[in-house]
Amino acid sequence: MKLLVLSTVLKQRHIDKIRETSDRYDLSVAFTDSEVNIPEGFEDPDIVYGFGTGIARRSRDLKWLCVPSAGVDYLMSPECFMNEDCILTNSSGSYGVTIAEHIIAVSLMMMRRLTYHFEETSQGTWGEERYLQRSLKDSRITVLGTGDIGIEFARRARAFEPLSIKGINRSGICDDPAFDSIDKIDSIDEILMSTDLLVMSLPSTPETVDILDRRRIGLLPDDAFVVNVGRGSAIDEEALADALDEGHIAGAALDVFKTEPLPSDSRLWNTKNLLITPHVAGNLTLEHTLDKNVDMFVEDLDNYMSGRPLRYIVDRKRGY
Amino acid sequence: MKLLVLSTVLKQRHIDKIRETSDRYDLSVAFTDSEVNIPEGFEDPDIVYGFGTGIARRSRDLKWLCVPSAGVDYLMSPECFMNEDCILTNSSGSYGVTIAEHIIAVSLMMMRRLTYHFEETSQGTWGEERYLQRSLKDSRITVLGTGDIGIEFARRARAFEPLSIKGINRSGICDDPAFDSIDKIDSIDEILMSTDLLVMSLPSTPETVDILDRRRIGLLPDDAFVVNVGRGSAIDEEALADALDEGHIAGAALDVFKTEPLPSDSRLWNTKNLLITPHVAGNLTLEHTLDKNVDMFVEDLDNYMSGRPLRYIVDRKRGY
Repeated sequence: MKLLVLSTVLKQRHIDKIRETSDRYDLSVAFTDSEVNIPEGFEDPDIVYGFGTGIARRSRDLKWLCVPSAGVDYLMSPECFMNEDCILTNSSGSYGVTIAEHIIAVSLMMMRRLTYHFEETSQGTWGEERYLQRSLKDSRITVLGTGDIGIEFARRARAFEPLSIKGINRSGICDDPAFDSIDKIDSIDEILMSTDLLVMSLPSTPETVDILDRRRIGLLPDDAFVVNVGRGSAIDEEALADALDEGHIAGAALDVFKTEPLPSDSRLWNTKNLLITPHVAGNLTLEHTLDKNVDMFVEDLDNYMSGRPLRYIVDRKRGY
Repeated sequence: MKLLVLSTVLKQRHIDKIRETSDRYDLSVAFTDSEVNIPEGFEDPDIVYGFGTGIARRSRDLKWLCVPSAGVDYLMSPECFMNEDCILTNSSGSYGVTIAEHIIAVSLMMMRRLTYHFEETSQGTWGEERYLQRSLKDSRITVLGTGDIGIEFARRARAFEPLSIKGINRSGICDDPAFDSIDKIDSIDEILMSTDLLVMSLPSTPETVDILDRRRIGLLPDDAFVVNVGRGSAIDEEALADALDEGHIAGAALDVFKTEPLPSDSRLWNTKNLLITPHVAGNLTLEHTLDKNVDMFVEDLDNYMSGRPLRYIVDRKRGY
């Protein structure tokens, strides 16, 4: 059997770890940076760890694709896999810590008006105006999507003494004590009306597309802030831009967009109080994220090779 | 007796609270925005709450000055008080929460390279480069000054799962569990050598001037970050700028400076990886800060009028 690993960021310790496990099962393994540089003999591997979307699309032999991303929306249409029984695993669970830090960072940047101050000081101006600050302390926080990211964020946000942290998900169930309450998605409208900070960490599925639509944006208080780190498809971007430009909400920080990179003619570039980051909340440069990402793959490699069920499997119908 | 309150930010509820307490003791009270608009009959008040530095300098009758700031370095020279027995209280204790949020915000902005990304996106550019991120997770944090600010920061930082949070102060004593250890200032050199994030929240006293001098900056690892929210006097700014420009440390976020506003010809404006904020970490626009500030004054007003010792008294010799 053959395993092909595609990555530009792995360190020697990660390579050693993958090789050790492969050796234990007489699995041949090759490492390369991308699908355009496939080592000889590995054109049709049994297993791929990395963004092997091209191989998945053309190879009948691929039995398992493990992607280093949490979201797998780009692998949902039927033509993505030549072998329709190909197993898909993702790396949801490795990004919670790093994306939680991003959410706290951008929330505070907006609430404390550091975006304003930084724009002034980075132009060499002290800036005399003292903008009205808001704080995580005493805020009513709503977390839409209570997976790994939502939970790690809530744990950190808790230390800032918010008034409340409410989680919303499909089942209404999440037993992590970081949330004060968990509600089903049906209750979202009511909860939005008393939300100071809305954090969105949802996978992209048919049900989450435009879940924050124009009507729901209208339910948020005028001084509410929105952070999206899940997928851009979850927000009606036009409606959000209108709300920001007209001051119907206080600010938004988007790391994900319907189209990425954000097109240069997008009106979002000129939208008021919008903090744009170029999909970097969960990038793999953080050692902790990368270590966990590799650990998760190796755990499932061990499972796969010894015939046990995989742990990080994606339900290709549900989409996450 | 007469109480003069100088403030531009008090809300009606704060005015009511101060008036209630004053009424209880038959204390006459007047409110105004600044020393240039003193209401008739209040030119020589017994008590001032606010930045009454002019009154302190010229009035023999002033018995107690309560300033809404934490730092009182600007009141330390003998000519600051005409009445040398005038009591001075400060508002250290009201700023911990807001300044702790600032420290977390700027630390994450630097460590996660959000300053780079924000500079790019605020110019309308997506920015293809993915900078090497660092995180609070697994960082070795050192907090120089373990008062209210240091403690509130450490409590929040704890939730990010750092490797360690070490406190340094004069006595080597602080029983707050947010710190893994507390060391005396004598140990600073050794601790700096294994610090990823140095947070400085010191009052300005003769002992803290240039406490982070060129030699000590040289002890920090190349990938260390420095945050100063105490007083600008604590850092040799020239040496810090050299270290940043030459890449001997990874970044610094300064909210305080030797001269404020930072002069337009200061080299700090053009120093690499330096995040400048215009002394806003502890500004009084945050409701929580202002409420606590007023509560502390009213508590001591009650103490003063009933002859009990004041709680928030400043040792004018020690300087805090």
